[in-house]
Amino acid sequence: MSLMTGEEYVESLRKLKLNIYLFGEKLSNPVDNPMLVPSRNSVKMTYDLAQIPEYQNLMTATSNLTGEKINRFTHLHQSTEDLVKKVKMQRLLGQKTASCFQRCVGMDAINAVYSTAYEVDKEYNTNYLDNITGFIKYVQKNDLTVDGAMTDPKGDRGLSPSKQADPDLFLRVVERRPDGIVVRGAKAHQTGICNSHEVLVMPTVSMRPEDKDYAVAFSVPVDTEGIMIVVGRQSCDTRKLEELSDIDVGNKNFGGMEGLVIFDDVFVPNDRIFLNGETEFAGVLVERFAGYHRQSYGGCKSGMGDVLIGAAALAAEYNGVPRKSHIKDKLIEMMHLNETLYSCGVACSCEGCKLAAGNYLVNLLLANVCKQNVTRFPYEISRLAEDIAGGLMVTMPSEKDFKNPVTGKYLEKYFKGTSSIPTEDRMKVLRLIENLCLGTAAVSYRTESMHGAGSPQAQRIMIARQGNLDHKKSLAKAITRIEE
Amino acid sequence: MSLMTGEEYVESLRKLKLNIYLFGEKLSNPVDNPMLVPSRNSVKMTYDLAQIPEYQNLMTATSNLTGEKINRFTHLHQSTEDLVKKVKMQRLLGQKTASCFQRCVGMDAINAVYSTAYEVDKEYNTNYLDNITGFIKYVQKNDLTVDGAMTDPKGDRGLSPSKQADPDLFLRVVERRPDGIVVRGAKAHQTGICNSHEVLVMPTVSMRPEDKDYAVAFSVPVDTEGIMIVVGRQSCDTRKLEELSDIDVGNKNFGGMEGLVIFDDVFVPNDRIFLNGETEFAGVLVERFAGYHRQSYGGCKSGMGDVLIGAAALAAEYNGVPRKSHIKDKLIEMMHLNETLYSCGVACSCEGCKLAAGNYLVNLLLANVCKQNVTRFPYEISRLAEDIAGGLMVTMPSEKDFKNPVTGKYLEKYFKGTSSIPTEDRMKVLRLIENLCLGTAAVSYRTESMHGAGSPQAQRIMIARQGNLDHKKSLAKAITRIEE
Amino acid sequence: MSLMTGEEYVESLRKLKLNIYLFGEKLSNPVDNPMLVPSRNSVKMTYDLAQIPEYQNLMTATSNLTGEKINRFTHLHQSTEDLVKKVKMQRLLGQKTASCFQRCVGMDAINAVYSTAYEVDKEYNTNYLDNITGFIKYVQKNDLTVDGAMTDPKGDRGLSPSKQADPDLFLRVVERRPDGIVVRGAKAHQTGICNSHEVLVMPTVSMRPEDKDYAVAFSVPVDTEGIMIVVGRQSCDTRKLEELSDIDVGNKNFGGMEGLVIFDDVFVPNDRIFLNGETEFAGVLVERFAGYHRQSYGGCKSGMGDVLIGAAALAAEYNGVPRKSHIKDKLIEMMHLNETLYSCGVACSCEGCKLAAGNYLVNLLLANVCKQNVTRFPYEISRLAEDIAGGLMVTMPSEKDFKNPVTGKYLEKYFKGTSSIPTEDRMKVLRLIENLCLGTAAVSYRTESMHGAGSPQAQRIMIARQGNLDHKKSLAKAITRIEE
Amino acid sequence: MSLMTGEEYVESLRKLKLNIYLFGEKLSNPVDNPMLVPSRNSVKMTYDLAQIPEYQNLMTATSNLTGEKINRFTHLHQSTEDLVKKVKMQRLLGQKTASCFQRCVGMDAINAVYSTAYEVDKEYNTNYLDNITGFIKYVQKNDLTVDGAMTDPKGDRGLSPSKQADPDLFLRVVERRPDGIVVRGAKAHQTGICNSHEVLVMPTVSMRPEDKDYAVAFSVPVDTEGIMIVVGRQSCDTRKLEELSDIDVGNKNFGGMEGLVIFDDVFVPNDRIFLNGETEFAGVLVERFAGYHRQSYGGCKSGMGDVLIGAAALAAEYNGVPRKSHIKDKLIEMMHLNETLYSCGVACSCEGCKLAAGNYLVNLLLANVCKQNVTRFPYEISRLAEDIAGGLMVTMPSEKDFKNPVTGKYLEKYFKGTSSIPTEDRMKVLRLIENLCLGTAAVSYRTESMHGAGSPQAQRIMIARQGNLDHKKSLAKAITRIEE
Repeated sequence: MSLMTGEEYVESLRKLKLNIYLFGEKLSNPVDNPMLVPSRNSVKMTYDLAQIPEYQNLMTATSNLTGEKINRFTHLHQSTEDLVKKVKMQRLLGQKTASCFQRCVGMDAINAVYSTAYEVDKEYNTNYLDNITGFIKYVQKNDLTVDGAMTDPKGDRGLSPSKQADPDLFLRVVERRPDGIVVRGAKAHQTGICNSHEVLVMPTVSMRPEDKDYAVAFSVPVDTEGIMIVVGRQSCDTRKLEELSDIDVGNKNFGGMEGLVIFDDVFVPNDRIFLNGETEFAGVLVERFAGYHRQSYGGCKSGMGDVLIGAAALAAEYNGVPRKSHIKDKLIEMMHLNETLYSCGVACSCEGCKLAAGNYLVNLLLANVCKQNVTRFPYEISRLAEDIAGGLMVTMPSEKDFKNPVTGKYLEKYFKGTSSIPTEDRMKVLRLIENLCLGTAAVSYRTESMHGAGSPQAQRIMIARQGNLDHKKSLAKAITRIEE
Repeated sequence: MSLMTGEEYVESLRKLKLNIYLFGEKLSNPVDNPMLVPSRNSVKMTYDLAQIPEYQNLMTATSNLTGEKINRFTHLHQSTEDLVKKVKMQRLLGQKTASCFQRCVGMDAINAVYSTAYEVDKEYNTNYLDNITGFIKYVQKNDLTVDGAMTDPKGDRGLSPSKQADPDLFLRVVERRPDGIVVRGAKAHQTGICNSHEVLVMPTVSMRPEDKDYAVAFSVPVDTEGIMIVVGRQSCDTRKLEELSDIDVGNKNFGGMEGLVIFDDVFVPNDRIFLNGETEFAGVLVERFAGYHRQSYGGCKSGMGDVLIGAAALAAEYNGVPRKSHIKDKLIEMMHLNETLYSCGVACSCEGCKLAAGNYLVNLLLANVCKQNVTRFPYEISRLAEDIAGGLMVTMPSEKDFKNPVTGKYLEKYFKGTSSIPTEDRMKVLRLIENLCLGTAAVSYRTESMHGAGSPQAQRIMIARQGNLDHKKSLAKAITRIEE
Repeated sequence: MSLMTGEEYVESLRKLKLNIYLFGEKLSNPVDNPMLVPSRNSVKMTYDLAQIPEYQNLMTATSNLTGEKINRFTHLHQSTEDLVKKVKMQRLLGQKTASCFQRCVGMDAINAVYSTAYEVDKEYNTNYLDNITGFIKYVQKNDLTVDGAMTDPKGDRGLSPSKQADPDLFLRVVERRPDGIVVRGAKAHQTGICNSHEVLVMPTVSMRPEDKDYAVAFSVPVDTEGIMIVVGRQSCDTRKLEELSDIDVGNKNFGGMEGLVIFDDVFVPNDRIFLNGETEFAGVLVERFAGYHRQSYGGCKSGMGDVLIGAAALAAEYNGVPRKSHIKDKLIEMMHLNETLYSCGVACSCEGCKLAAGNYLVNLLLANVCKQNVTRFPYEISRLAEDIAGGLMVTMPSEKDFKNPVTGKYLEKYFKGTSSIPTEDRMKVLRLIENLCLGTAAVSYRTESMHGAGSPQAQRIMIARQGNLDHKKSLAKAITRIEE
Repeated sequence: MSLMTGEEYVESLRKLKLNIYLFGEKLSNPVDNPMLVPSRNSVKMTYDLAQIPEYQNLMTATSNLTGEKINRFTHLHQSTEDLVKKVKMQRLLGQKTASCFQRCVGMDAINAVYSTAYEVDKEYNTNYLDNITGFIKYVQKNDLTVDGAMTDPKGDRGLSPSKQADPDLFLRVVERRPDGIVVRGAKAHQTGICNSHEVLVMPTVSMRPEDKDYAVAFSVPVDTEGIMIVVGRQSCDTRKLEELSDIDVGNKNFGGMEGLVIFDDVFVPNDRIFLNGETEFAGVLVERFAGYHRQSYGGCKSGMGDVLIGAAALAAEYNGVPRKSHIKDKLIEMMHLNETLYSCGVACSCEGCKLAAGNYLVNLLLANVCKQNVTRFPYEISRLAEDIAGGLMVTMPSEKDFKNPVTGKYLEKYFKGTSSIPTEDRMKVLRLIENLCLGTAAVSYRTESMHGAGSPQAQRIMIARQGNLDHKKSLAKAITRIEE
């Protein structure tokens, strides 16, 4: 059996010797660190739901490599139906965690690397397909969480990797040995890195021949020597450290995390290398990973959107105004925008195609259209949620003030909405909206929607490239009877 | 063989004795009337393309009723794949005609009536399924074009059918005879009515028991006694009547048409009745037809959008500015919006489901989301096209001025854009953009996008109903640990 | 007394020997040509209202040159109050004509040329200020309408005037004589040219030394030898020629017109020259004229918007749905957007400043912001109007069908909305909305909003230049305590 | 001399015996509490700038009551020029503090109460004008900061004050005594209450006769017996308490604060009462205060916008991409939107009018239009800022990690952007953007933009009321020649 329970997953993390820094200190027990526990719980949900029969159609798949039942997050997509199920699974997890559950990057990375490795091998007679296949089998068998690491620090955005003042601003091979390579550099914004077993590194841009040392893909365990993680801080992050913060924290149990991963001369053995100097394939790999990941957001963000819409509807109810026409209209607009995101996620999936390696790729044009909408609609959904919530969302005193005997009774009295609803429930809902619009989850629902899987302009470049403007010009010429 | 050629289709129209009025006169030969020819050509394209092998995968299907190869416009959708192909077919036709090709309403109507008839029969032991099945076989065998007629004049929108000052403002049964019924009323905005063989009438709103006489569905030939058609006028319609109007007309060969169809005590034989007084099914039928037709717009409008985007790209090229970053960015935005519409059309199709009768229905929530976007994005695409086109689109002199020997040489000289492009080509492209943004095709690309298959508010009501807000509230409660 | 009555204005036009072509023919009596009469009436309104005491505060001013009471359209603005009154006058005229009243370009041109002439004289010891002052006195004394002509055909937009394949694609001096200059070229999109006494020509872009012959400004009577006008065609223009078109035309009495004005070696006497080769002032002149004219649109377009909003409100009322919350909300949104345009028009006026020549200029940053909003909001207001109007706006049969005894009674019956309102009134309102959204007035309300006074990108360039980003960077550095 | 220095202002706060709770504890020294110091500094800036000659034209005015030079925040506006200067002063302070400077509510309150008192006196022969005049003189003379307190908790939003389950959910008179009244209730979202000398209470809704006890306006010192303040928590608030938080806090020196103010049977002497039971004037007072305050946002939010735009421009520069066309275009869009807000603030000011009492009121329609735009554009400006900033804004490790010797060198290395810029400067700018988009200042820049001075729907109701739709209908009827 290749599926871990949630508890087994947490235990498996304990065995890792991760080198993690947070707030200027090295963490001795990251697994139970209160700043990181919610993010661990979100990943854990990908294991928990896979155990529940009603969700297994979405959460699990049958491995084409081994024939075994595996978690879908470790699966090579075998059909457009698989691609659609991926999106539905992500929406489900967004609904259950109201946060980033972090495991998608690994799924998207193995699918991109696998198909690219096949094509590199064809061209160069390398054996990357064997390497990545072996790796994927290992991941499937042990039900591992893989961090797919793409984004380099990039330094001056106007310069290519080999032209940077500091050559390490893109991750690169610094030494080639008979048994493997040594790499140096860093990957930024690594979602879920503290909750992962493996880190699968890929290049982050198209490259030219002079960038040979930068065209490298591989995977190593996250606790490999030379890897250091520095956790990024999120808006409102320290509320998780406060006493009496069951409510103020907004989403007590779930969250995301991001970190900078530093590779300080890390050794990668030969059988874990998936690309090594074949520069013209860097762009292919980036484009595919980005395509898969832009599809992903049609799922996870619509799931988070469902929770935010539900919270806004509750806030309206607790304020006593659920029947007002402008409130209903705003909730409809939120649902409309949210389902448009989901539609785009579904469409790029069912319009996907089979690659030479045998696994399926999303329709790249539609996946980029999907993500472009994701850079807009969650912002408007948030704005409407803040509209419905009312100003109390950001002026409400702390939980401690509610517990204080002097002030508590006044707060109970004056923050009462509809008389049948406990004031505490109203607080909880407002804090959840705050969490998603301004707090820790806003990092995922807003900024990640903007920049995750590539910033908006990256999608626009792909839409220009994939949109086939010449065909459209021909159509217009045919209608106007202009000769080509 | 159940497929007509385009020419056979045109001949078949000549055999009809249609009672059509236009500009205050009864038309003796509507088929060749220059005001209507372009609309006939657009329907003809649905026949022409079905003859071309490369398009037959989309344009034809195998009838589940007869096993024969039929035009997809007469097909009962047998799978979600069929639903997706429908959308692709519509996009193709939008690209080829840059106008409304009018045959969708019939396809959407037979699918809606068929599945509803099945359910009415189950409830009331009626034999509507036999009637509609017989009708569909007849349509398939003869490859007919069917006008699906839904929208009643409605009078005072605040009043239900039986409460109107004039009882005929919704179409109704005025006499019940042993061999059939007699109906009176009208249907407005009937797209393609002059180019159709049959008119399939359906109710337009949900009804209550007192509206029994209004809950009626049936089909009759368009030239049945008592039917009168008055053609609606479109923006710029009379350019089609001008001499020397090859260019000014914008789209010489294709167009749409709409008309008011008046039923002045028309007899309907029993075997052509598909609903007759079962008021509680009126709403079901409306909802399904609207669902199918809201899906349709994800196809046809993205096809028209392709032509408009292509025309805008040509206009930029002819103006000498195709490389300007703001022009490129606007074209990207147009493609992005257009593909979002298409994505919504695809998504509601592949998320469709099988009905009790056996044919497939789109996902109603997503179909309404699709149409809601259609009420917005073509307007923004038009705006961007007008931006790129420049003011000349609406200040350019007439074709006659170009042909006049005195003025012609000046116009040639001064309306030259990029020197390699004939001034006439520039004119043609600008006139096509005018046609789509302001002219005859704007009726389809703008107003029909707004009101066809129901006005925006109708979709919002459906989104509210289908969006399952209660489930979203439960999700938010689970995250905040509020007890249900 | 320097004010003409409307009738005197029309008579004054009859005295001009204009060389006008329309639909391939030279017009013998343009003043009474039914295609042009509505546009003449709109200009006439600027004379009519100036005669009515209640409007004189806005419509008239006291000349700083002569001390006489003059029409404000011939005035040099003497204060920010004058600038604000200009906008209010324009809104009033937009409300009264629901079209372009064409006289603004002349007002904006004299103000721009006057202040620039002053500065050129200072630099070059020329006597342009005398020339323009003499011209303005003449215009004020005779209450003339002046066409301010800026936009050259421009050919390949990527090339400067002197680099075009055809040197005439920007208007230029082709001969310099002791008594004046001879010019050749054309001006496109000339609003109101057929209803003007004078045409005041200005350059259309910033220029470099090699463009010396193109840096020319002057005024001549519109019927000067060598001037030819070709009238542009508008959407739905020929409805004005139809019999029985009181209703279908949408706006029976008022409209706009645009034309191409060709200068085929036209002589300009010395005292009518306002710029002649001082290339570095071409940009200043363009910037000022554009600034004034971008302000203008905050007035006229909000006036047209008032009519469109009123028509939409009537349509809702006649449909029986004025109380529906979504209808009310859309009307509010239309008013909100419309008043935002007006606010921008007012703000750039009251933030105006005195120029060296003594007259007042608008705040250029805010005037460009004003116009940028004008390229967006009328489109959204139109979209909402079409939403409220319903599809009948574009499927309603012609007036002739209403008059036909066979069809008329059915149309009366079936197009009845609220029972208390005559069907004809409903038709009239829908045709007015069509006129503004798709018909002749859409040329002004939509396309002119987009491109008049410069296309959107032109404003963006000015906003970038005037927005003082460096100051904003300093503010951010001060807050973050980054040293400059 | 009626002007305090900033230092004197801070000293004056120390003399108050405020009863403030924060995080469950009563504050012994609120003036120096690190959570509140930034908000105190923002108010202090209103004193500091009034001392600097270059700003005195905006920051000070001459009292119409005493003839003395006063801070403009204590001024009764004597002209539309005063109203415009108010907006410019607010923009200036927004630029200098990048936060809410809190003193506007008092200015807006005294202007609203003064003019209303005059009208109540006329109607009822009361002496409220004397009371408020005396109060304003006292405020001017001592240069006090006044908290204008309007928003009641409101309980069930569907119920009027006297219909609430708890009668105290709107503040009310609970006892009437010969020398004054005793009031009970609370005011929510009180911006700047901890930094104010006086609290001026007003009703929050229109009222009917049965709400007599709720129609009350008065002022008392903030440290009056019975007043308790509970400070609200903001996003990221506790970063101000962290060691080594010069950078992470985003805006070290400035901020806003909001609190719940509880009136637990507070005595108000007769000469401090400005309304007491004259229910029909409650609506007038609310409308005026809201009008003034909706104008205010056109100033302060455009000032904050300036800082955010500047920060985004710096971020682009530090990323090495300031010349990319899409970056420039986004900055232009941000400036465009920001100047539109400012234009609306200016327009409602210069279109203001004199009230019966002698002071000036803004144009209410345009002030509501102003605020309605404020509920939208700062959200879009924030979205664009987040786009330009990049994901690092929310994944950057803490300042402590930068200071840690192990991790610091890596962070320095890998977070380097353009090589000429210190990594720390890049961090600072990103943290400022985070502060404005997600952190403490987002409470002001986003949520207060939404709900301050009334939620969006409140403005829409006013726009409907003030928009004069009937006049617009008449205009449309005149154009279509429909008889009234």
